[in-house]
This record gives sequence, C-alpha cells and structure tokens, in this order.
Amino acid sequence: MNTDNLIFGRNSVGELLKSGRSINKILFAKGKLDGSVQKIFADAKNSGTVVEFVEREKLDKIAGGKNHQGVAAYAAAIQYSTVEEIMEYAESKNEAPFIVLLDEIEDPQNLGAILRTCDAVGVHGVIIPKRRNAPINSTVAKTSAGAVEYVKIAKVTNVAQTLKELKKLNLTIVGSDMTGEIEFTKADLTGGICFVIGNEGKGMRRLTRENCDLLVNIPMIGKINSLNASVAGAVIMYEIFRQRRK
Amino acid sequence: MNTDNLIFGRNSVGELLKSGRSINKILFAKGKLDGSVQKIFADAKNSGTVVEFVEREKLDKIAGGKNHQGVAAYAAAIQYSTVEEIMEYAESKNEAPFIVLLDEIEDPQNLGAILRTCDAVGVHGVIIPKRRNAPINSTVAKTSAGAVEYVKIAKVTNVAQTLKELKKLNLTIVGSDMTGEIEFTKADLTGGICFVIGNEGKGMRRLTRENCDLLVNIPMIGKINSLNASVAGAVIMYEIFRQRRK
Repeated sequence: MNTDNLIFGRNSVGELLKSGRSINKILFAKGKLDGSVQKIFADAKNSGTVVEFVEREKLDKIAGGKNHQGVAAYAAAIQYSTVEEIMEYAESKNEAPFIVLLDEIEDPQNLGAILRTCDAVGVHGVIIPKRRNAPINSTVAKTSAGAVEYVKIAKVTNVAQTLKELKKLNLTIVGSDMTGEIEFTKADLTGGICFVIGNEGKGMRRLTRENCDLLVNIPMIGKINSLNASVAGAVIMYEIFRQRRK
Repeated sequence: MNTDNLIFGRNSVGELLKSGRSINKILFAKGKLDGSVQKIFADAKNSGTVVEFVEREKLDKIAGGKNHQGVAAYAAAIQYSTVEEIMEYAESKNEAPFIVLLDEIEDPQNLGAILRTCDAVGVHGVIIPKRRNAPINSTVAKTSAGAVEYVKIAKVTNVAQTLKELKKLNLTIVGSDMTGEIEFTKADLTGGICFVIGNEGKGMRRLTRENCDLLVNIPMIGKINSLNASVAGAVIMYEIFRQRRK
C-alpha cells in the first residue's frame, strides 16, 4: 500500500469520509472509541468502508511519530483535475476564475496550509508543477485539515506554458515578490486571477516571474526580509478574496 | 550544551551573527566554503566567535535530519523580556503598543512563522505562557528565519492576569475566533492592541476569550472551518498593520 495516501488524525479522516473519496481501509487503535472516533467508526461502517482494529503501537509506527489520535486511513490515490476542469468549475459557479499556482513549493506543511487557505477563500483550483513540488502525502493531508480532499489540484509539466495559456483566457497573472512594484493592498486584484506563490527559499523562477502581469509586494518593516511561504500566500489570497467580495 | 539553543541553516546563523546575541560556537561542515557560508565564516572570525570544522555527517546528526546547509551555531540562551520592557519599547518608538499574545501555541513551526510575521509588521513584543507553549528551540529559530533574535518575547505565568493588566493600560484585547462578532477587515484595529492567537486545535482558552474586548472572525467560504494558526494570525496581523499605517 502506498503510504503517500495515508491520512491520519480525526479531522483529516473525518473529512476524507465526508468527501466521498474512495478509501481502501481505515485503521482504528484497539480500545474504547471515544466521541469523535466513534462517529468516524459509525460513518465508516455506514459507507461500507473496510475497517481494521490494530495495536496503538502499530498506528504510532505507521504515522511515523506524528499524532494520529487513534485513527488512520488509506485513501485511494488523489484524483487530479486538469486546468480546463478548474476553468469550467469557475464558469459553472459563474465566478471570475481564482487560481493559485505553486512554483515549486517544497515543504509539505506549507503545501497543506496553502491548500487549507485556498479552500477558505474559494480558490477554484491549484496548479502545481509535476516536478520539484512537494508530493501530496500524509503530511500535506494532515496540515491541510482535509482541504486536499476538496480543492481541485492540476499537475502541469510546463509552468511558463500554462501561464501563457491562462493569459490568453484573460486571467491576470499576479506574483508576490519583495521587489514587486506595488503593495498588495493597493493593487487591483479583481477579475480573473492566477496568483503565483514561489519557492520557500528562491521565490519564483525567472521564467515564471517574466510571465507575471503584476508583481505585488508585502510591506515589511522588521529586520527579516521575507515571510513564510504559506503565510505570504494567505495574506495576499485574503486581499484578493476581500476585493472579490466587495 | 543545550540543543534548544542550536541554530542551523545559512539564513538563521547569519541573522544570529548580525543580532549580536552571544554565541558559544559555530560549526562548519569540512570542505570548501561557498558564497554565503564563506561570508558567515568571515563574520564569525571578525566578531571573535569560536568556530569549529566538523564532518558533514556530524552536522546531519546534530540537525536531526533537517537541512543545515553546512552550518550550525550554539547560541547562548534566549534573552527574555518583560511585559513592561515591551511597553517601554513601544513608548520609546512613540507608537501605540502592538503586542501579540500566544495562548498555548504547540507547534514550533507555527511559533517560528508567527515570530517572523511579528517582526515584519513591527509588533513590539510577543507574550507566551510559561507552561504548555512550544519551547523556543532550533525548529522555532529556523522557521522564524532569525526573527527569534529580534522580536522581544516575554513569558508570563498567568495569561488572564496579564490581559487584565494590559486592559488597564488602555490596550484593546483582540481575539480571533470562528464565532467572532465582526469580520476582521470591518473591525477598528487602530490604537494600542494586544492580539491573541489561540491554540492550533482548541483555540483560545475560556478565560482568555472572556478577557477579550473584541472577537473578530476570518470569513471562510469553503468546507474546512479553520485556518492554520500561523496563517490566521498573519492575516489579522497584516490587517492591524494596514490600519495602523493609514
């Protein structure tokens, strides 16, 4: 079984069940099932999911020392979307497309936190490069609090090419960069947008940056010159969200 | 030597050197020193810091598998501030106090990311409870990108008591909560503020919440009902920052 599809923790397994995504098996720690785990167990039985009781030590081992809270699930592989499906989804909701593109985010915790924020602000889909991006693994699923089950994710081979195609569809490509020409709260972030979040250490790649229509900066008045990638992404996504709702 | 004060990675060790904080020793991986590591080595020698060359495998072991980038430092213990010193610091800058209180943040990565954001938006100091808060360890230092060296941190034994004292000093205690009465962008967040960030899973404790003058919510339109703690904190801190700069 592929541990990349291992989901653990009560929230994450609960969300997995609610999402309707195919589940191979759910493991419960032997012993009394308390409140929320009992609910998960009932939902699992109702949906006909295979369940198995194992020693708590086995769960510890499977979770690699992380906090599984007595429950873990082997989900079927992530169902990826295409960029076209993301665009169609925005259209079906009669909304200007709001897409997030991750340019080589490496840290699974950042990826999870970003997906969680994407769900919160109504992003229609996330585009990630096939190579050099953090894999969608159990850490991502856990940090995303289950958002990985809800947010459409498309993998592309060529980020620059994808951005060019999105431009043709009238999306504004917005990148975040220390050297950005305008503060993010002062920029017009309405209309169809593809917002690009760069790598944790290196930022956006040159070709990605060159394909941006607008580079915004996040003002910083301290001694450190960058924010955590998921934090910077969230601060700008919430500004886009605020402007879209006006 | 206390590994809680172990700092690794180029950015973090570079910032540690710049901060002027006392350093017991800096370890470099044997071999050719490239660009930024060479700079750190030169700065270390100039400041009279003890340096030592060790096998890369030893650094791997010390860093516990995390990415040390060929350099690690043993810093002297964190110099904690008092709440009074934080208030005096705000006064010395002739600014309305902007304080962040962490109510039992457990994840060192969240703590590091929050400190980094605090540095960026000019927070005068961070208050943490003596008990049940993530320790200021090497993961915090690394995730904070060095902000742990710059942001004043005060430890208090009784959070509710501290909030009461801050109220007497005319600070508005602002908490973030799903059930908050007003959206964060619609609240008046000017003037002296103590912004409270609650625990990752449980949010603020009852007594902490009861001491808030204002509970703001972050709107979310997806299926997940909460954001990552450092993300939620940053989104609100940037709104406070935006309103203060107007």
